Amino acid sequence: MENEETKTVPKSWAMVGGDGPRSYAQNSSYQRGGLVIVNELMNEGIKDKLEFISPCSDSSNICTFRIADFGCSVGPNTFLAMEKIIEAVEQKYHAQFQNSPVPLEFQVFFNDVTTNDFNTLFKTLPLYQKYFAAGVPGTFYGRLFPKSTLHLAYSSYSLQWLSKVPEEVVDTKSPAWNKGSIQCSGTAKEVAKAYSAQFKTDMDNFLNARAQEIIGGGLMVIIILGLPDGILLSQTVAGKSYELFGSCLIDMAKLGVISEEKVDSFNLPLYYSSAKELEEIIKNNGHFCIERMNMLNNPMMKRKLDVQFVISQFRAIFQGLLEEHFGRDDVDKIFEYFAKKFAENYDSVFNGATPQHVDHFILLKRNIN
Amino acid sequence: MENEETKTVPKSWAMVGGDGPRSYAQNSSYQRGGLVIVNELMNEGIKDKLEFISPCSDSSNICTFRIADFGCSVGPNTFLAMEKIIEAVEQKYHAQFQNSPVPLEFQVFFNDVTTNDFNTLFKTLPLYQKYFAAGVPGTFYGRLFPKSTLHLAYSSYSLQWLSKVPEEVVDTKSPAWNKGSIQCSGTAKEVAKAYSAQFKTDMDNFLNARAQEIIGGGLMVIIILGLPDGILLSQTVAGKSYELFGSCLIDMAKLGVISEEKVDSFNLPLYYSSAKELEEIIKNNGHFCIERMNMLNNPMMKRKLDVQFVISQFRAIFQGLLEEHFGRDDVDKIFEYFAKKFAENYDSVFNGATPQHVDHFILLKRNIN
Repeated sequence: MENEETKTVPKSWAMVGGDGPRSYAQNSSYQRGGLVIVNELMNEGIKDKLEFISPCSDSSNICTFRIADFGCSVGPNTFLAMEKIIEAVEQKYHAQFQNSPVPLEFQVFFNDVTTNDFNTLFKTLPLYQKYFAAGVPGTFYGRLFPKSTLHLAYSSYSLQWLSKVPEEVVDTKSPAWNKGSIQCSGTAKEVAKAYSAQFKTDMDNFLNARAQEIIGGGLMVIIILGLPDGILLSQTVAGKSYELFGSCLIDMAKLGVISEEKVDSFNLPLYYSSAKELEEIIKNNGHFCIERMNMLNNPMMKRKLDVQFVISQFRAIFQGLLEEHFGRDDVDKIFEYFAKKFAENYDSVFNGATPQHVDHFILLKRNIN
Repeated sequence: MENEETKTVPKSWAMVGGDGPRSYAQNSSYQRGGLVIVNELMNEGIKDKLEFISPCSDSSNICTFRIADFGCSVGPNTFLAMEKIIEAVEQKYHAQFQNSPVPLEFQVFFNDVTTNDFNTLFKTLPLYQKYFAAGVPGTFYGRLFPKSTLHLAYSSYSLQWLSKVPEEVVDTKSPAWNKGSIQCSGTAKEVAKAYSAQFKTDMDNFLNARAQEIIGGGLMVIIILGLPDGILLSQTVAGKSYELFGSCLIDMAKLGVISEEKVDSFNLPLYYSSAKELEEIIKNNGHFCIERMNMLNNPMMKRKLDVQFVISQFRAIFQGLLEEHFGRDDVDKIFEYFAKKFAENYDSVFNGATPQHVDHFILLKRNIN
């Protein structure tokens, strides 16, 4: 569908496709770890906040309940989440309309960027799922569905990805130039301002698009990476890891392996938001009411993680992005170097005293106009 | 979605994916040739037979018009067809509700088997299409959509593909064993009976599934390969080509290149139906009313075709099927041999006197229960 957003987001990258050892499918246990805690919150949220206006709103006496996962990547996480949501919706439906003769049918839309590996997603769909499945390609910062056709939207670990790196932070002439760093560490004020503004724009575009697509009273579950109050990204394990990764790129440029210019123009299109920031954006947007907001500590973060495991997860997520910027050949070298340096610095990054980022869980309800 | 059909269709193959020189995307001009004539018929059909009950049936005052292409393969043919359908629907809508303030939004579902190359389909979607796109994986001989959610269904050059080769024709102990042939030539009565029964079962499953999914009064356009009255497949150019292809397999088995057993167990899951047969199946099914039925001669058939062109089209269609049966390595050899033998026999297959198959154009309307 033609829209302003798709025009201004020419680039897109996806998690590593397929189901091989380097795939996102095989390297997404962090995201799955989050799902376990989230399940209970979703269950409660659907039980308390979902309302069916009538057992069947259309003339043919069948109710289709439409769910979309925005930023689904490939399975199995998205399949598990959809299954849990459907269970909760069915329970609520049966509780509200006891012995309702009208069967509820589910249609689930799996959305991700066009470069996502939909072929693998489709081939790994559970054989006997309880829903009719569809894939929807395109950026979720623009419209993807007809008006008022979704009943429940879900987005898990996706909205921390910005639609693009803010231009100023890679512009050597800008006061927001992020020299020597690849992330929004939080210490450089102008950089933080540029990242924060981009995040606000993106979130607003997301909420506006979803506001059109979700029916009045419909729910939206958002799980997004973020920061606890008063903590900067650079103080966290994640921030220290990105910093270390950035230092590898600088080392490699000095060694002449990759170009310095490419390193200078590289920043992560990632933003870790605070609860306060998110709340403000959602309230200013005005289309959704915040039903619930929690800060979760992903259980994966309590574990002492194996270096190889961390590198694998990192690679499954960032490989596509890095290939786009540095070219396919250099990415293997970058990860080799990173693995070595990461192992050497492991204790300084992962010492027990370093704060961790959080997962924000947000339950929204679309206002009835 | 769990259903009987998907359980009994364990195998599926797709046209050749990607957009390289051997892809279906680059080798589907026969199917595109058909589209040109079909356009006018569709246009008329939509103009005469599509009825909007109200400018907007849902409370939010927006009308979503849902279209599905069953067996879309990859573009560009499916994109062209969807564009033409939308143009015709919009014209009809504006003619029926002059100055209607309610905007019509379109959602288009591209369906094909799970092994179809949806990644390429999505990447080649027109940049500024007028609809919200979704991909739906799975066999169209079973349910794919929630009840009463489609307004117009389309299926082009897909329903001649059976869900499977009838078991009897590759069973050496059956009276319907199709010894020495890979097709339903029409001369062996028991073979024809087995193929015809399979076609009837498949079409019935297709019609039953679509009857659930299409709203009362909704339309379905079917374009399907078939035979003119009184002509057997073996008498046509297509049949003679399949026969020649089959003889290549037998030659190669004799030469010891491929196994005889594999050749004996191979038949094409293709059925060319007559208008009478189709009419009977649709009438017996009872869910749809036949609004229009035409036999078309694809303009591509009038051309004197280049041997290389025929081989390329053949390969784009049959490669996946052959790889599944004979293994990837032997398929190259088979096509090499076929190209040679085809060139030698070109004049006997493509002489002006040989009858051609036809394209059936069928416009159906879902009965209002």
